[in-house]
Amino acid sequence: MNSPTSLARTPVPPYYAVIFTSLRNAGDHGYAAMSDRMVELGSGYAGFLGIDSAREADGKGITVSYWRDEASILAWKRDAEHQKAQRGGRESWYAAYEVRIAKVERAYGKM
Amino acid sequence: MNSPTSLARTPVPPYYAVIFTSLRNAGDHGYAAMSDRMVELGSGYAGFLGIDSAREADGKGITVSYWRDEASILAWKRDAEHQKAQRGGRESWYAAYEVRIAKVERAYGKM
Repeated sequence: MNSPTSLARTPVPPYYAVIFTSLRNAGDHGYAAMSDRMVELGSGYAGFLGIDSAREADGKGITVSYWRDEASILAWKRDAEHQKAQRGGRESWYAAYEVRIAKVERAYGKM
Repeated sequence: MNSPTSLARTPVPPYYAVIFTSLRNAGDHGYAAMSDRMVELGSGYAGFLGIDSAREADGKGITVSYWRDEASILAWKRDAEHQKAQRGGRESWYAAYEVRIAKVERAYGKM
Protein backbone atom coordinates (compact mmCIF):
# COMPACT_ATOMS: atom_id res chain seq x y z
CA MET A 1 0.00 0.00 0.00
CA ASN A 2 0.94 3.64 -0.29
CA SER A 3 2.38 5.43 2.74
CA PRO A 4 0.17 7.92 4.59
CA THR A 5 1.73 10.87 2.76
CA SER A 6 1.41 9.69 -0.82
CA LEU A 7 -1.53 9.25 -3.16
CA ALA A 8 -2.56 6.02 -4.85
CA ARG A 9 -1.29 5.67 -8.41
CA THR A 10 -3.80 3.99 -10.64
CA PRO A 11 -3.80 2.89 -14.29
CA VAL A 12 -5.56 4.67 -17.12
CA PRO A 13 -9.38 4.33 -16.71
CA PRO A 14 -11.71 2.53 -16.87
CA TYR A 15 -11.42 0.82 -13.48
CA TYR A 16 -13.60 0.70 -10.38
CA ALA A 17 -13.61 2.64 -7.11
CA VAL A 18 -15.26 1.65 -3.85
CA ILE A 19 -16.02 4.86 -1.97
CA PHE A 20 -16.49 4.12 1.73
CA THR A 21 -17.60 7.03 3.92
CA SER A 22 -18.11 6.53 7.63
CA LEU A 23 -18.65 8.09 11.03
CA ARG A 24 -16.74 6.32 13.80
CA ASN A 25 -18.18 5.68 17.23
CA ALA A 26 -15.98 6.78 20.16
CA GLY A 27 -13.29 4.41 21.44
CA ASP A 28 -10.98 2.09 19.52
CA HIS A 29 -12.40 -1.33 20.49
CA GLY A 30 -9.97 -3.09 18.15
CA TYR A 31 -10.68 -0.77 15.23
CA ALA A 32 -7.13 0.36 14.39
CA ALA A 33 -5.76 -3.18 14.28
CA MET A 34 -8.71 -4.39 12.18
CA SER A 35 -8.33 -1.46 9.80
CA ASP A 36 -4.62 -2.14 9.23
CA ARG A 37 -5.32 -5.84 8.75
CA MET A 38 -8.04 -5.16 6.17
CA VAL A 39 -5.67 -2.99 4.11
CA GLU A 40 -3.02 -5.71 4.29
CA LEU A 41 -5.47 -8.46 3.36
CA GLY A 42 -7.43 -6.57 0.70
CA SER A 43 -4.33 -5.32 -1.08
CA GLY A 44 -3.29 -8.92 -1.67
CA TYR A 45 -6.45 -9.67 -3.65
CA ALA A 46 -6.25 -10.00 -7.43
CA GLY A 47 -7.47 -6.84 -9.11
CA PHE A 48 -6.55 -4.51 -6.24
CA LEU A 49 -5.08 -1.30 -7.70
CA GLY A 50 -4.58 1.00 -4.70
CA ILE A 51 -6.17 2.77 -1.76
CA ASP A 52 -6.52 6.31 -0.37
CA SER A 53 -7.77 7.01 3.14
CA ALA A 54 -8.32 10.05 5.37
CA ARG A 55 -10.14 10.59 8.65
CA GLU A 56 -10.94 13.81 10.49
CA ALA A 57 -10.46 14.16 14.24
CA ASP A 58 -14.28 14.39 14.57
CA GLY A 59 -14.66 10.79 13.35
CA LYS A 60 -15.65 11.32 9.71
CA GLY A 61 -13.60 9.20 7.35
CA ILE A 62 -13.32 8.40 3.67
CA THR A 63 -11.55 5.39 2.19
CA VAL A 64 -11.45 4.87 -1.56
CA SER A 65 -10.08 1.58 -2.86
CA TYR A 66 -9.45 1.05 -6.57
CA TRP A 67 -10.11 -2.22 -8.41
CA ARG A 68 -9.67 -3.66 -11.87
CA ASP A 69 -13.27 -4.82 -12.17
CA GLU A 70 -16.45 -5.67 -10.27
CA ALA A 71 -15.52 -9.33 -9.92
CA SER A 72 -12.45 -8.33 -7.89
CA ILE A 73 -14.59 -6.19 -5.60
CA LEU A 74 -17.06 -9.01 -5.07
CA ALA A 75 -14.33 -11.55 -4.27
CA TRP A 76 -12.91 -9.20 -1.62
CA LYS A 77 -16.36 -8.47 -0.19
CA ARG A 78 -16.86 -12.22 0.31
CA ASP A 79 -13.52 -12.80 2.07
CA ALA A 80 -14.31 -14.53 5.39
CA GLU A 81 -12.11 -12.30 7.56
CA HIS A 82 -13.44 -9.22 5.77
CA GLN A 83 -17.02 -10.39 6.37
CA LYS A 84 -16.26 -10.59 10.10
CA ALA A 85 -14.88 -7.02 9.97
CA GLN A 86 -17.98 -5.86 8.07
CA ARG A 87 -20.16 -7.25 10.88
CA GLY A 88 -18.02 -5.42 13.46
CA GLY A 89 -18.44 -2.24 11.45
CA ARG A 90 -22.21 -2.53 11.26
CA GLU A 91 -22.62 -3.53 14.89
CA SER A 92 -20.10 -1.38 16.76
CA TRP A 93 -17.37 0.65 15.01
CA TYR A 94 -19.50 2.86 12.80
CA ALA A 95 -22.39 5.14 13.78
CA ALA A 96 -23.13 5.46 10.07
CA TYR A 97 -21.53 4.48 6.78
CA GLU A 98 -22.16 4.35 3.05
CA VAL A 99 -20.53 2.15 0.41
CA ARG A 100 -20.64 3.32 -3.21
CA ILE A 101 -19.39 1.21 -6.10
CA ALA A 102 -18.43 3.42 -9.01
CA LYS A 103 -16.83 3.04 -12.42
CA VAL A 104 -14.00 5.54 -12.94
CA GLU A 105 -14.37 6.91 -16.44
CA ARG A 106 -11.80 9.73 -16.50
CA ALA A 107 -8.89 10.86 -14.35
CA TYR A 108 -6.24 13.57 -14.34
CA GLY A 109 -3.95 15.23 -11.85
CA LYS A 110 -0.52 16.32 -10.76
CA MET A 111 1.79 13.79 -9.12
CA MET B 1 -23.91 21.16 2.70
CA ASN B 2 -23.67 18.53 5.41
CA SER B 3 -22.08 19.40 8.74
CA PRO B 4 -18.63 17.95 9.51
CA THR B 5 -20.12 15.11 11.52
CA SER B 6 -22.69 13.82 9.08
CA LEU B 7 -22.45 11.92 5.82
CA ALA B 8 -23.85 13.06 2.48
CA ARG B 9 -27.23 11.58 1.64
CA THR B 10 -27.56 10.83 -2.03
CA PRO B 11 -30.38 9.49 -4.22
CA VAL B 12 -30.63 5.96 -5.59
CA PRO B 13 -27.90 5.39 -8.23
CA PRO B 14 -26.97 5.98 -10.94
CA TYR B 15 -25.34 9.35 -10.33
CA TYR B 16 -21.77 10.67 -10.59
CA ALA B 17 -18.96 11.12 -8.06
CA VAL B 18 -15.91 13.35 -8.40
CA ILE B 19 -13.19 11.82 -6.23
CA PHE B 20 -10.57 14.43 -5.41
CA THR B 21 -7.48 13.20 -3.52
CA SER B 22 -4.73 15.64 -2.58
CA LEU B 23 -1.60 16.32 -0.60
CA ARG B 24 -1.49 19.82 0.84
CA ASN B 25 1.64 21.93 0.93
CA ALA B 26 2.48 23.47 4.34
CA GLY B 27 0.88 26.79 5.33
CA ASP B 28 -2.65 28.05 4.73
CA HIS B 29 -2.01 30.81 2.14
CA GLY B 30 -5.74 31.44 1.78
CA TYR B 31 -6.60 27.75 1.40
CA ALA B 32 -9.24 27.41 4.15
CA ALA B 33 -11.23 30.42 2.95
CA MET B 34 -11.03 29.25 -0.68
CA SER B 35 -12.09 25.72 0.31
CA ASP B 36 -15.16 26.97 2.22
CA ARG B 37 -16.07 29.27 -0.66
CA MET B 38 -15.80 26.46 -3.22
CA VAL B 39 -18.20 24.29 -1.18
CA GLU B 40 -20.63 27.20 -0.89
CA LEU B 41 -20.40 28.01 -4.60
CA GLY B 42 -20.37 24.46 -5.95
CA SER B 43 -23.32 23.33 -3.84
CA GLY B 44 -25.45 26.00 -5.51
CA TYR B 45 -24.91 24.51 -8.96
CA ALA B 46 -27.72 22.57 -10.61
CA GLY B 47 -27.15 18.84 -10.30
CA PHE B 48 -25.13 19.05 -7.08
CA LEU B 49 -26.21 16.19 -4.79
CA GLY B 50 -23.83 16.35 -1.81
CA ILE B 51 -20.24 16.32 -0.60
CA ASP B 52 -18.04 14.38 1.83
CA SER B 53 -14.61 15.58 2.87
CA ALA B 54 -11.84 14.44 5.24
CA ARG B 55 -8.23 15.46 5.71
CA GLU B 56 -5.51 13.88 7.83
CA ALA B 57 -3.17 15.98 9.96
CA ASP B 58 -0.31 14.90 7.64
CA GLY B 59 -1.90 16.78 4.71
CA LYS B 60 -3.59 13.94 2.80
CA GLY B 61 -7.19 14.73 1.96
CA ILE B 62 -10.14 13.26 0.12
CA THR B 63 -13.20 15.16 -1.06
CA VAL B 64 -15.97 13.35 -2.90
CA SER B 65 -18.72 15.45 -4.45
CA TYR B 66 -21.83 13.84 -5.92
CA TRP B 67 -23.58 15.02 -9.07
CA ARG B 68 -26.67 14.19 -11.08
CA ASP B 69 -24.80 13.86 -14.38
CA GLU B 70 -21.61 14.71 -16.27
CA ALA B 71 -23.03 17.95 -17.65
CA SER B 72 -23.42 19.28 -14.09
CA ILE B 73 -19.80 18.40 -13.31
CA LEU B 74 -18.58 20.14 -16.45
CA ALA B 75 -20.58 23.30 -15.73
CA TRP B 76 -19.05 23.48 -12.24
CA LYS B 77 -15.55 22.81 -13.57
CA ARG B 78 -15.94 25.80 -15.94
CA ASP B 79 -17.14 28.25 -13.23
CA ALA B 80 -14.81 31.28 -13.38
CA GLU B 81 -14.18 31.50 -9.64
CA HIS B 82 -13.63 27.74 -9.49
CA GLN B 83 -11.15 27.96 -12.37
CA LYS B 84 -9.16 30.51 -10.40
CA ALA B 85 -9.17 28.15 -7.40
CA GLN B 86 -8.06 25.28 -9.65
CA ARG B 87 -5.08 27.37 -10.76
CA GLY B 88 -4.21 28.11 -7.12
CA GLY B 89 -4.40 24.41 -6.38
CA ARG B 90 -2.09 23.45 -9.23
CA GLU B 91 0.38 26.24 -8.56
CA SER B 92 0.59 26.45 -4.76
CA TRP B 93 -1.84 24.67 -2.43
CA TYR B 94 -1.30 21.07 -3.54
CA ALA B 95 1.94 19.11 -3.75
CA ALA B 96 -0.01 16.46 -5.64
CA TYR B 97 -3.62 15.71 -6.53
CA GLU B 98 -5.78 13.44 -8.61
CA VAL B 99 -9.31 13.98 -9.90
CA ARG B 100 -11.38 10.92 -10.82
CA ILE B 101 -14.80 11.15 -12.44
CA ALA B 102 -16.82 8.03 -11.70
CA LYS B 103 -20.34 6.76 -12.27
CA VAL B 104 -21.87 5.38 -9.07
CA GLU B 105 -23.64 2.17 -10.01
CA ARG B 106 -24.60 0.73 -6.61
CA ALA B 107 -24.73 1.98 -3.03
CA TYR B 108 -25.73 0.69 0.40
CA GLY B 109 -25.09 1.59 4.01
CA LYS B 110 -26.33 2.38 7.47
CA MET B 111 -27.49 5.91 8.27
